[in-house]
Amino acid sequence: MDIVQELLAGSRLALARAITAVENEYDEAAEIMQKVYPFTGKAQVIGITGPPGAGKSTLTDKLAKEYRRQEKTVGIVAVDPTSPFYGGAILGDRIRMNELTLDPGVFIRSMGTRGSLGGLARKTVDVIKIMDAFGKDIIFIETVGVGQSEVDVIKASDTIVVVLVPGQGDDIQAIKAGILEIGDIFAINKADYDGVERLNTELEMMLELNPNNALWRPLVKRTVASRGDGVEDLMQAINEHVEYLVTSGELIRRRSIRTKNELLLLINDHISKQVMDRISLGGELDSLVNSIEDHQQTPYNIVRNILAEILR
Amino acid sequence: MDIVQELLAGSRLALARAITAVENEYDEAAEIMQKVYPFTGKAQVIGITGPPGAGKSTLTDKLAKEYRRQEKTVGIVAVDPTSPFYGGAILGDRIRMNELTLDPGVFIRSMGTRGSLGGLARKTVDVIKIMDAFGKDIIFIETVGVGQSEVDVIKASDTIVVVLVPGQGDDIQAIKAGILEIGDIFAINKADYDGVERLNTELEMMLELNPNNALWRPLVKRTVASRGDGVEDLMQAINEHVEYLVTSGELIRRRSIRTKNELLLLINDHISKQVMDRISLGGELDSLVNSIEDHQQTPYNIVRNILAEILR
Repeated sequence: MDIVQELLAGSRLALARAITAVENEYDEAAEIMQKVYPFTGKAQVIGITGPPGAGKSTLTDKLAKEYRRQEKTVGIVAVDPTSPFYGGAILGDRIRMNELTLDPGVFIRSMGTRGSLGGLARKTVDVIKIMDAFGKDIIFIETVGVGQSEVDVIKASDTIVVVLVPGQGDDIQAIKAGILEIGDIFAINKADYDGVERLNTELEMMLELNPNNALWRPLVKRTVASRGDGVEDLMQAINEHVEYLVTSGELIRRRSIRTKNELLLLINDHISKQVMDRISLGGELDSLVNSIEDHQQTPYNIVRNILAEILR
Repeated sequence: MDIVQELLAGSRLALARAITAVENEYDEAAEIMQKVYPFTGKAQVIGITGPPGAGKSTLTDKLAKEYRRQEKTVGIVAVDPTSPFYGGAILGDRIRMNELTLDPGVFIRSMGTRGSLGGLARKTVDVIKIMDAFGKDIIFIETVGVGQSEVDVIKASDTIVVVLVPGQGDDIQAIKAGILEIGDIFAINKADYDGVERLNTELEMMLELNPNNALWRPLVKRTVASRGDGVEDLMQAINEHVEYLVTSGELIRRRSIRTKNELLLLINDHISKQVMDRISLGGELDSLVNSIEDHQQTPYNIVRNILAEILR
């Protein structure tokens, strides 16, 4: 049996190996994805996003347990857009998840970029697909949601939960148009903190003014994830949203957009990689840099020449 | 006179227009950059990075004033990696800069991505080049430093100042390997807050353990940017670092790496754009998405075909 057959048969080891192959861009990655693809499209994908320190990881854990209680299997992809600042924090949170990692019905993977230029979004998409094919019922994508491509990835969720916390000083700043457009559900976490009423009111007011909410008016829920308060209620809100997605036909539309985004990411990523490989392999890069430093060429000339050389 | 001649002659209007052309990818952008390029390489580039709320903008403003007092002209590029969360905050800060914007020796530009996939880093590089050619002595790049390509941009600075604040709860988390490698100078801002001693000690300890610091031991400075405290001292630290760069030959090495990064960004960006244009223009994209949804093709087949079709 090859790795894909093994993972389709339920091997967690094969699942882990397939994900590693994709993450590290091993040669077999493309073949794995090609074989896995027909088995995807069944999982419910839930995006969890919000600023650092909002309690995304804790909330995701508690939601995961809630779904486990309903006998659903869970995958979690924690995306770390390689920030020197937040990277550590996210991975730090992840360490707390010992209890969940002992549950064979839960599979957790942290993803970060180091060195690769913009490949994270595409790899995240692939990891979700692998977990989906493996048979995970619920897949969480958890990210601080910074960087355009990370936002694109989270946008590909069926349901997006934006996690906010009261009293971060600049609540009004935080509740900018961007996150209002993105959120299907808002979880005000750490709802035992001061400022929860103010944040709640501001949020409701801004949602009221948003003309995009004709079909689905985003729900606002309060949670204290560390104690599990409000988590069941939040899960019910997610279920309500899925119900809406299915009955309104919005699910099909969203998934079509997701397919399109995935295709664009894939094309973009593969072309970049091919081109970079060609330039680097020929040892051409250093001599090009020299020719710029010697004022013989500008980067703009060089790019024009390379495009002419490489593209049909 | 064309726009480049005008900006080289000192027209702020031409400078603004050239930057806008690059930012919006107008047709003339490539020609502008090509003409501007020979006049670049004179400015001193200072990167200011740190978590949201650290006071980067205020500190940049105060540093800018300090340089102005020395009759140096200043450009500021505030990069907002299109976060729905931080975007607003950065732009919010920028509004405070009224006093500086009245000074004709200072030119400020905020840059954000909306919609463009990964193009921000390359555009930032171009904007810095335009300001450089215009004759700015000092150019600040200010960013929260999230996302791999944003980190690459800031890495291209001559000097990187990492701004930290005490008492953010998870100081130890924040001081991860990543920022230790990146920072030439650490500014502990809001140094009148509790926890400054602890942060300072932790930082010094971790810098002590870092083996990369044989040639340049990063300096740690305390500031209260809002009051201007420590800003002159911080500028002296920057000057010390520049002195080190020049005498050690490290400046040449850094700028060579910068040229290489810029070239790679440029190639990557132009190829992606060309390919996307071809696919989108032909109206091919929608039918490709359909063929995936109908299970006639997988994204992986499609990418393989497109690569074969487009690349020589």
